[in-house]
Amino acid sequence: MFEQLGLVGCGLMGGSFALALKRAKLVKRVVGYSKSPSTTERARQLGVIDVAAPSALLAVSGADLVLIAVPVGASESTFKAIRHGITDQMLVMDVGSTKGDVIEAARRGLQDQFNSFVPAHPIAGKELAGVEHADAALYLGRQVVLTPVKATRRSNVQRATQLWTGIGAKVVNMTPEAHDRAFAAVSHLPHLLAFAFTNAITADPEGARFLELAGPGFRDFTRIAAGDPAMWRDVLLANREQVLQQSQAFRAALSQLETLMQTGDALALEERIAAASHARAQWQPGSSTSPD
Amino acid sequence: MFEQLGLVGCGLMGGSFALALKRAKLVKRVVGYSKSPSTTERARQLGVIDVAAPSALLAVSGADLVLIAVPVGASESTFKAIRHGITDQMLVMDVGSTKGDVIEAARRGLQDQFNSFVPAHPIAGKELAGVEHADAALYLGRQVVLTPVKATRRSNVQRATQLWTGIGAKVVNMTPEAHDRAFAAVSHLPHLLAFAFTNAITADPEGARFLELAGPGFRDFTRIAAGDPAMWRDVLLANREQVLQQSQAFRAALSQLETLMQTGDALALEERIAAASHARAQWQPGSSTSPD
Repeated sequence: MFEQLGLVGCGLMGGSFALALKRAKLVKRVVGYSKSPSTTERARQLGVIDVAAPSALLAVSGADLVLIAVPVGASESTFKAIRHGITDQMLVMDVGSTKGDVIEAARRGLQDQFNSFVPAHPIAGKELAGVEHADAALYLGRQVVLTPVKATRRSNVQRATQLWTGIGAKVVNMTPEAHDRAFAAVSHLPHLLAFAFTNAITADPEGARFLELAGPGFRDFTRIAAGDPAMWRDVLLANREQVLQQSQAFRAALSQLETLMQTGDALALEERIAAASHARAQWQPGSSTSPD
Repeated sequence: MFEQLGLVGCGLMGGSFALALKRAKLVKRVVGYSKSPSTTERARQLGVIDVAAPSALLAVSGADLVLIAVPVGASESTFKAIRHGITDQMLVMDVGSTKGDVIEAARRGLQDQFNSFVPAHPIAGKELAGVEHADAALYLGRQVVLTPVKATRRSNVQRATQLWTGIGAKVVNMTPEAHDRAFAAVSHLPHLLAFAFTNAITADPEGARFLELAGPGFRDFTRIAAGDPAMWRDVLLANREQVLQQSQAFRAALSQLETLMQTGDALALEERIAAASHARAQWQPGSSTSPD
């Protein structure tokens, strides 16, 4: 049980974390701050936070638990802003979709308080950003990846594990490098492809007519293209090396299929489609069984 | 109201058509044939067809309505096989996802009976192929594209329109060329990309571990990768020129995003993501509002 959560970033992810902790009675009070004063105020009106703080530093001061839930590109400036409010007793976490860059930002920003920080990535989200869509059940049944490094205080990793478990999530531990490689493959690249695909259609002179004919396959394939632009800009930039490497592998697989189409090699084409179809049919979501 | 449906291909699409006509009391009797005798027999046991025919020709003989529901690559041999059973009084349709190639196959296969044929593409489907998944509601609320050509008997286009409307579908008329261009963009290319993406992940030495971490974004993005290999092999080959052209446009859009990542142009990257996000958020499914 924590006394006070200092929440920096009262959007979908941060707001849902606050609501989940309140529902599970794991925190007594939430003090929140968002860059936009109207967001902070809306979070207070919605009961997501109890007190609106006028700065990130004042949001974390006096807290025993801190969550940084900002686009990953804003990590370093946020860590710098809160540094003088962090004590050895605090557990500090983030929710970023990339880990290597956030850890470096925390190292630079938190300096001698870096070992209070437990890097965390809950595999959850919605296409509807903003505190209005915050949901106490967002993390229920989801996986949360923790990527502690050598300097990370062990007791904080334990506390983080208990906390996420307490709101119904399943904790997985990985190195930051393995995390960033895996999520480049299964999350960041699909987003990049969905953005590119959607842009290609809208750039077509006949695009608007095409879209009228699109069905449920298009609907599901492009759902993630509606993601939050600022968040995904930062993720793609922060993890660019891994994403570009995965994109090269994807292009090679695409070229292989295209060559089989061009040469009319029906047998081999069917074999490659069957391999994909089989792999996808076999796949079971890790812990992500509930629809979002 | 039709007396007898001759169904060639008792899979998901054909079986669902038969069930829908029966439910709407638009046909008295269904005689069916599938290449695999066990499929034909299962269709009879499930009540999808009333009589199992030993050949495509015998399935259509004596019918006043014929539906060809086979992978598009099997169109020409199927039309040839039934040609001598087709009369001027019959309405013959298909359900293929490509239209230019099926029309040419019908011209060659049906010869002087070509004008009985109304090319049709119902925009519906499931990842679960086979007569076991046939569903009387598959076409309910869906769009059906008819692509009649100059030779097509007008009275048959009218009858086809009434028939699809009678089972709850919405009929759209297009030229075969416009159809194939549009569906290359909104359906065939997404399938190709989903196959390539899935193959790239499984080819990665760490692919199996990556997949354990995949969440709901991956789930929806790759749903169509589980499609029927024989069907999609034929579609990608039949419409290859349009699909490869759309793929080039996609690659250009992907390269644009990759360049912005490489150069670290955060502003322009966010703008391109925002354009995709906005377009996708604005999109409303034409008539395909029900989940499949």
